[in-house]
Amino acid sequence: MCIYPQARVSLVGAGPGDPDLITRKGLKALQTADVVLYDALAAPELLTEAPSTARQFYVGKRAGRHSMRQEKLNELIVRLAFRYGHVVRLKGGDPFVFGRGHEELEEARRRQIPVSIVPGISSCIALPALQQVPITRRGISESFWVLTATTRKGQLSEDLRLAAQSTATVLILMGMRRLREIAAHYVSIGKGALPAMVIQNGSRADERCFTGSIDQFVERISVDPLAGPGIIVLGSVVGLHANFAKTVALQQLNRAITR
Amino acid sequence: MCIYPQARVSLVGAGPGDPDLITRKGLKALQTADVVLYDALAAPELLTEAPSTARQFYVGKRAGRHSMRQEKLNELIVRLAFRYGHVVRLKGGDPFVFGRGHEELEEARRRQIPVSIVPGISSCIALPALQQVPITRRGISESFWVLTATTRKGQLSEDLRLAAQSTATVLILMGMRRLREIAAHYVSIGKGALPAMVIQNGSRADERCFTGSIDQFVERISVDPLAGPGIIVLGSVVGLHANFAKTVALQQLNRAITR
Repeated sequence: MCIYPQARVSLVGAGPGDPDLITRKGLKALQTADVVLYDALAAPELLTEAPSTARQFYVGKRAGRHSMRQEKLNELIVRLAFRYGHVVRLKGGDPFVFGRGHEELEEARRRQIPVSIVPGISSCIALPALQQVPITRRGISESFWVLTATTRKGQLSEDLRLAAQSTATVLILMGMRRLREIAAHYVSIGKGALPAMVIQNGSRADERCFTGSIDQFVERISVDPLAGPGIIVLGSVVGLHANFAKTVALQQLNRAITR
Repeated sequence: MCIYPQARVSLVGAGPGDPDLITRKGLKALQTADVVLYDALAAPELLTEAPSTARQFYVGKRAGRHSMRQEKLNELIVRLAFRYGHVVRLKGGDPFVFGRGHEELEEARRRQIPVSIVPGISSCIALPALQQVPITRRGISESFWVLTATTRKGQLSEDLRLAAQSTATVLILMGMRRLREIAAHYVSIGKGALPAMVIQNGSRADERCFTGSIDQFVERISVDPLAGPGIIVLGSVVGLHANFAKTVALQQLNRAITR
């Protein structure tokens, strides 16, 4: 029913950063793209997968930096699809996890353009895994809860307060600016000893990972605010990270020496 | 420090079913495998990616069927790595989402075998997306909670009761046998009208998707128990599924006719 039969849109998840963490289906979409729209979170190496004739546009945003308004972007996708054919919208992570992919889908659908969704590896699951920390583990954590720190209105999320009470592993995306506040909340409800982890530039060569108990994070942030985007992981499973094994070994050694 | 320098293990997520939903990194691991251990959830087409000389073993399980005990499997992985080199453990979905991948990792690590984790597309995120339902959407759902229905002890998960109270999109894996009980719980707390979706054989040619309000599911299950594995999605975002648009359109039409 599309008036321009060749117009179509693929919303493709690029994965968490490592260009090898895109799916084969995502690669196939890129390889048949007439236009690629990408953002700062998608690995730039992936752009070379598109045909050399494909048009490429940067439409990304990072917290605090100037970016294209979403409505304008939705409209751009439609216009480019009508003009050039297959538009691949390459999005960091998964297109439907805290992205605005569904708004892009709706606009295209409203204009009768067929849309296919290509799921991507979401950083919330993959980045802890690459640190060899399982977000679920029998007998330790039987569920996980993925949140952003703030609601659309800028308040600390009410779900976050509920999540802190639960036994779920809590994974917070886009929360680095609220890290101190989040940590302080856990301390205030008596969970300061819970293991926590922050991963920045996850799955890339310059990945950084910080581990410690939540109360240690409160102290740490006052010295080093850990600026820049990152993912926050809170829960007992983080205690399975190799760093904690070292801490325990060191404590045992100290006890043996002081005995 | 490994006594057999060639021994190594890759825990590879195969994705939700569609063989194109494996990552490029997962394909590369398969292509260098000396041994592949796979389960029923991994797409069988993926086995052809391994070298023809690679040994392949089925170690899978499905609820209720006979399966290899986990401890025996952990030991097998180690033995095969020492004997043949690169063991790829191909797991449906992501290796660390409700799998026992971390137990396999620990056993290999204990035996000084290097392990790499290759994250996979988890069905909890991808299957709703392929139905064009976003698990988060600004203004509708700001978080999602992934659970199994039951704890290790076989009880309905306490986290599930908490999740039902929250505004998170709730995604339940391995919960089909408890679907009636889960739906009844939502009805009992006054959330019977919440949109719900069940996806079976997700991302495969024989995918089945059922949508309706939670109370409709209670009635429905008494007629058709929806046997077999599936994923359950509960939350307002499910109302964005195309089926609901049809329902609403039909209701409006009915109202127009009866007026």
